[in-house]
Amino acid sequence: MFGLIGKMRAQPGKRDALLEILAKGTEEIPGCLSYVIARDPEDADAIWITEVWDSEDSHRASLSLPSVQAAIAEARPIIAGFDSNVRTEPVHGIGH
Amino acid sequence: MFGLIGKMRAQPGKRDALLEILAKGTEEIPGCLSYVIARDPEDADAIWITEVWDSEDSHRASLSLPSVQAAIAEARPIIAGFDSNVRTEPVHGIGH
Repeated sequence: MFGLIGKMRAQPGKRDALLEILAKGTEEIPGCLSYVIARDPEDADAIWITEVWDSEDSHRASLSLPSVQAAIAEARPIIAGFDSNVRTEPVHGIGH
Repeated sequence: MFGLIGKMRAQPGKRDALLEILAKGTEEIPGCLSYVIARDPEDADAIWITEVWDSEDSHRASLSLPSVQAAIAEARPIIAGFDSNVRTEPVHGIGH
């Protein structure tokens, strides 16, 4: 499996708008086993994104999907950057 | 919802043993919506743990469960520490 843990930073005051875009752009993606977006309670503009994929190829392929490309285009203006982004190798997970 | 993202450090060379304990100690816990353990490919002793709970109370209550207490007792000698541990407020997730 392939995983990512990222801390994304919204433009000031735009966190909720960015969360909404991320939520709707990421439904029903082949190979995506888990995708969780979360607020950082200590950091008003920060969003944690944790992802589990069946493979790195599935993650890469997802970036070409029309729904994902639309979400990226819509989100880009209100993303300030990434504070961190870590690749992981998930070995075990229990589900939602 | 309530979430945690932690980077746990095993005693040198004990990561796989620690992963095994974490995996078996965390099945079927009330209120636990997602629990993923992952290797850090850049850091041979590091484990990323990402958790989503329906509430902070469920997380707290889980620490009293016999299965969790047994896992903690077994794991403690091979845990070197936590490099980081962040609380989150999950707002959206897609499942396994």
